[in-house]
Amino acid sequence: MCRWLAYSGTPIPLEELLVKRERSLIDQSLHARRGATTTNGDGFGVGWYDAGGSPRLYRSTHPAWNDRNLKELAAGVSSPLFFAHIRASTGTAIQETNTHPFRHGRWLWMHNGLIREFPILKRDLVLAVDDALYPSIEGTTDSEAMFHLALTFGLEDDPIAAVGRMVGFVEATGRRHGVEHPVQMTIATTDGTTVWAFRYSSEGDSRSLFYSTRMDALKAVYPDLAELSALSDETRVVVSEPLGDLPGAWNEVPESHVGIVRPGTDDLRPFRPSLPD
Amino acid sequence: MCRWLAYSGTPIPLEELLVKRERSLIDQSLHARRGATTTNGDGFGVGWYDAGGSPRLYRSTHPAWNDRNLKELAAGVSSPLFFAHIRASTGTAIQETNTHPFRHGRWLWMHNGLIREFPILKRDLVLAVDDALYPSIEGTTDSEAMFHLALTFGLEDDPIAAVGRMVGFVEATGRRHGVEHPVQMTIATTDGTTVWAFRYSSEGDSRSLFYSTRMDALKAVYPDLAELSALSDETRVVVSEPLGDLPGAWNEVPESHVGIVRPGTDDLRPFRPSLPD
Amino acid sequence: MCRWLAYSGTPIPLEELLVKRERSLIDQSLHARRGATTTNGDGFGVGWYDAGGSPRLYRSTHPAWNDRNLKELAAGVSSPLFFAHIRASTGTAIQETNTHPFRHGRWLWMHNGLIREFPILKRDLVLAVDDALYPSIEGTTDSEAMFHLALTFGLEDDPIAAVGRMVGFVEATGRRHGVEHPVQMTIATTDGTTVWAFRYSSEGDSRSLFYSTRMDALKAVYPDLAELSALSDETRVVVSEPLGDLPGAWNEVPESHVGIVRPGTDDLRPFRPSLPD
Amino acid sequence: MCRWLAYSGTPIPLEELLVKRERSLIDQSLHARRGATTTNGDGFGVGWYDAGGSPRLYRSTHPAWNDRNLKELAAGVSSPLFFAHIRASTGTAIQETNTHPFRHGRWLWMHNGLIREFPILKRDLVLAVDDALYPSIEGTTDSEAMFHLALTFGLEDDPIAAVGRMVGFVEATGRRHGVEHPVQMTIATTDGTTVWAFRYSSEGDSRSLFYSTRMDALKAVYPDLAELSALSDETRVVVSEPLGDLPGAWNEVPESHVGIVRPGTDDLRPFRPSLPD
Repeated sequence: MCRWLAYSGTPIPLEELLVKRERSLIDQSLHARRGATTTNGDGFGVGWYDAGGSPRLYRSTHPAWNDRNLKELAAGVSSPLFFAHIRASTGTAIQETNTHPFRHGRWLWMHNGLIREFPILKRDLVLAVDDALYPSIEGTTDSEAMFHLALTFGLEDDPIAAVGRMVGFVEATGRRHGVEHPVQMTIATTDGTTVWAFRYSSEGDSRSLFYSTRMDALKAVYPDLAELSALSDETRVVVSEPLGDLPGAWNEVPESHVGIVRPGTDDLRPFRPSLPD
Repeated sequence: MCRWLAYSGTPIPLEELLVKRERSLIDQSLHARRGATTTNGDGFGVGWYDAGGSPRLYRSTHPAWNDRNLKELAAGVSSPLFFAHIRASTGTAIQETNTHPFRHGRWLWMHNGLIREFPILKRDLVLAVDDALYPSIEGTTDSEAMFHLALTFGLEDDPIAAVGRMVGFVEATGRRHGVEHPVQMTIATTDGTTVWAFRYSSEGDSRSLFYSTRMDALKAVYPDLAELSALSDETRVVVSEPLGDLPGAWNEVPESHVGIVRPGTDDLRPFRPSLPD
Repeated sequence: MCRWLAYSGTPIPLEELLVKRERSLIDQSLHARRGATTTNGDGFGVGWYDAGGSPRLYRSTHPAWNDRNLKELAAGVSSPLFFAHIRASTGTAIQETNTHPFRHGRWLWMHNGLIREFPILKRDLVLAVDDALYPSIEGTTDSEAMFHLALTFGLEDDPIAAVGRMVGFVEATGRRHGVEHPVQMTIATTDGTTVWAFRYSSEGDSRSLFYSTRMDALKAVYPDLAELSALSDETRVVVSEPLGDLPGAWNEVPESHVGIVRPGTDDLRPFRPSLPD
Repeated sequence: MCRWLAYSGTPIPLEELLVKRERSLIDQSLHARRGATTTNGDGFGVGWYDAGGSPRLYRSTHPAWNDRNLKELAAGVSSPLFFAHIRASTGTAIQETNTHPFRHGRWLWMHNGLIREFPILKRDLVLAVDDALYPSIEGTTDSEAMFHLALTFGLEDDPIAAVGRMVGFVEATGRRHGVEHPVQMTIATTDGTTVWAFRYSSEGDSRSLFYSTRMDALKAVYPDLAELSALSDETRVVVSEPLGDLPGAWNEVPESHVGIVRPGTDDLRPFRPSLPD
């Protein structure tokens, strides 16, 4: 079980959301409120798009709350689009290659949840990964396998369809092995421009996921809140659990939905797995 | 804030107390019940006396609950006398030289608590450390400074008097700087034969400390408990919080007392700081 | 490229070979003489059989030369059979699950060398691993894949035949992908009683491997050498490069041979890959 | 013994000097040519001024050559002024607080060399550090002690005089303890605008130090070298050893000199320690 955060909008120092709040992501690494586990101390990762638009990663096996380099980086780096993830291992090894976000080309991917009975399903799942992608699997997590399956199924062309096929494939594989509810997930993925945030589980009881209210609406309610005024109307945050208690600021992503954060109008749509061909 | 454990008695694999119990020390690293903090994830250390009677250390900055080497070591090493400590930093850096136990010659030392306003007092405290001992200070904690002060004040000759002088000196120094309650501590120290366990705080409200009931008494109450039968009558454990719920097994060290665990009859005596000369 | 060491004989503290010699394994981590690389600073591992005969591991991603815990462990642990390995990565990630020795049940395995074009061959190789073994692959190295293939091909029943089949299979797979010389290896494996040490490469130009002269012969030549007198006649060391310059002490394992170190008479036999069925 | 690099000029990605050259600093971590040690694998650090002009640090105990986060950061962060340092410990612990650069307010500091017999001199040296600065000493190195002495002696007001007093004080202290040649150093320090680079040793035989030729002169000689054309005429690099073999590009800082790199005309002046008051 993990916690994650995706930011898109006016470039800000990463520390604004990772450090400088009572319920920042670093605070959640020590005291999460809604997670299946309260401590997320098995490593963390940050992925951001730099000034040239390239995705960069900083991942560590130390707890986020006591990593000084994370605080330095979060203060020194600003970005218009970044992901951050704190990990509570569900069994796989504590190593950088098992920390999120994962990266492929311009894409980033992070996940909260699990594939149930992954050690049993792993071989069949990994077998379906495209030959050309297979060598770039570096770690041993279910999350990275899901990413490579989604890439195999066309993530770069049609992310929602590809994730749908990935989930359908994992569910079919799981059920063939007698796993009742194979998938539990909230997932964020991005190509550096658009962010897709999925909330889904086979049992229809998914981990929590929230998105921030549109900035123009929020500014209308809180005209005096200085920290909002510098943010563009399109600025949006998607998080496993709210970063604060501001009434009206956070909205739950409904069960089995995908949120799309992009230049122009964002969108929220039903999401369902598709049967493999 | 931290948790610690001291074992003396029949040689056992370290994992018996560190790993293999519902409320083992590793479990306490993730979910302490009585500590000021519930997560003790800022490193850990184990000190044990090997077959030749020499003290050895394994210390790491990773959380105890996810360190595989700790589990291997705890399974592969048996010892008649060992210390273990899990750390929750009160502000000093997360680095091996700041993890307990500390070692000097044949002696080990570990501490739960703090010297209040240590950054302000540190210089005056460290100045009092013996010239010959000064270069062996490797880290930056209050705990290591206390150890070197106790060594300076004669720990190796008369541990109780030396710790009394150390506490008296820290309190006098603290009060000179306007600190009302300078010392909060439970401390364990050993020369490899005897273990001294102190519970004390300037405000008379010390962190918890427990010692196990004599084995012969415990075996009389629980004649069928297999895990007790292999342990000598003199086997004793001193811990920040009980390792289980067995009624009658755990006794609180009273406020301002020192327990002495040694071959022959153990002892429990009032402890008070002494005024510096 | 890496360096390794296997010891079998009179129980000794690990530090005797890892630390306390001018050309100890730790020294080789900083200044190897015969390796393809002179620095082996990408982690290390130690595997030993404890007093109960169980294999234990200590593996770290830090350079061996600056790891204090390794020095403590090597001083505090004695064993009649231990492996040690220092790593220079040939490309895969620096993480504990990629450090040697690897363990399965009672078996340990370590490797120096590489499978050429492993990223291209990996999928076909891993596909051949037994279903039941597949989930226990934790890292991403060629070395661990070789271990799991050898296990699949019967390592626990007939180690020499199994390693022969593994090499034959890797070579056949490699050549199918156009790799001229797929395998370069020295490998040590043990069940806790016997050690098998292989030297082989597809091109017939293998990394160096040495074994120590029988202790009775060595004692006859050096009757006054105190460090030899405590060792049983059957004590034997197999190493990537000699641990010292004592004339007559070290003998090269010939190209395409396997050495067998066991209770009773040791053996040295030609080794060749077998064609897969 | 260590290697370091200081860059001032046109903002560039850190990787230009740390990664992307045959003799980059990361290459020097594995194969230094002029150092007292060829391997500098005991950690590293990078200090840079961010877009807001604040100094940021990334320091790690892993070897620079195998740290992925360093490569990511070096690719993703650009700066007009940065320091980088690779460490070969002369005995003090391998921990982040002992890696360079050190920071105080807006200042950065890094050092190659040592104070001889530092364990013996340390107490007297640290005693001279200003009361208000003392608590900010976090590690245990001679280098950090030198920094705090220089700060005590007025680094922020007159860097050259302060470093002169620091060296004079260390030499006087050393000689009082019978140390013939107490100081061996190349040091770089900066306030974010000007860089001061010192080369000095008590024995007059200092570690190597080089500065790059003025860009306008270099461009005149190599009009076709694309990598030079984007750099301002004032761009300057100071390094322990040259980053390449371009004839005319690198000039040795003379023995007992300090180079001053700043907006406008740079300067190179004799440097000598001053007697303490």
